[in-house]
Amino acid sequence: MTRQLEPVTFRPIGVVRSPFADPDGMPIQASGAGGARGTIEVDPALADGLAGLEGFSHLVLIYHLHRVRRPRLVVTPFLDTETHGIFATRSPARPNAIGLSTVRLLAVRGTTLEIADVDVLDGTPLLDLKPYVPAFDDRPGARIGWFEGRAERAGETVSDDRFR
Amino acid sequence: MTRQLEPVTFRPIGVVRSPFADPDGMPIQASGAGGARGTIEVDPALADGLAGLEGFSHLVLIYHLHRVRRPRLVVTPFLDTETHGIFATRSPARPNAIGLSTVRLLAVRGTTLEIADVDVLDGTPLLDLKPYVPAFDDRPGARIGWFEGRAERAGETVSDDRFR
Repeated sequence: MTRQLEPVTFRPIGVVRSPFADPDGMPIQASGAGGARGTIEVDPALADGLAGLEGFSHLVLIYHLHRVRRPRLVVTPFLDTETHGIFATRSPARPNAIGLSTVRLLAVRGTTLEIADVDVLDGTPLLDLKPYVPAFDDRPGARIGWFEGRAERAGETVSDDRFR
Repeated sequence: MTRQLEPVTFRPIGVVRSPFADPDGMPIQASGAGGARGTIEVDPALADGLAGLEGFSHLVLIYHLHRVRRPRLVVTPFLDTETHGIFATRSPARPNAIGLSTVRLLAVRGTTLEIADVDVLDGTPLLDLKPYVPAFDDRPGARIGWFEGRAERAGETVSDDRFR
């Protein structure tokens, strides 16, 4: 398999600006971010790629969790006191520090996107931006392992520096 | 901004095996894949990261769209006859060729994951794997721009080689 695991390099398409300079106290999920506002500064060279984006109420952001220094395979996530395999969690300290958030799109002004429900650090390098489409992305009734009875607490739980 | 757009390199965590050797005829979305089966071969060095995964019915896959050769900023997507900015579509020919699919998890056997609703090419390098949690990932009632009246046709539409 190792032959197929060659490194892949991406150049960020932009940067996310948010009120969160530090992991301490940051919302742990966009759904629990209570409306926190931010902006996306898209690389002006990619401006043509934004045509039609204003028709969507939500965007899926895929980004580099650029402050994670040390990936771990087993973690105690913010929402539990027991350990879980990193791939069974949404914790940032992943082998590949890739983050995923669905945020609200408030306005498109040139290559600046105004967004809400932001749960990422200020200065986060954005790797991709996709329109959120419930018919593609929703799986109501999914079984959620250890998150059962805990996922809804995401809005009361904030980040700390445990995954730095 | 350019100073913050330094390249980011990831090493795949595994490979997706699917029935689709070629983009021609492949499902265009996991939700339209009609149950197509596949497997994920996770790098054995990451085995400990899978603990607890079997409690989840769905996984979010983030992967390298490794067969895209030429990114475009404006595309005619599979579901429309008009052009749209690439970031207002789910088309693969993106500036960063990153794919996102939510698949069903059928079984975990060591570092092999059996999955269904697969809409990716055989040999796709997997970058990250997250548990799907509706409370984090669902936004019912989202406004979906040009997908309105078209998203539900994803199950009747298959891929072709236009984005190669």
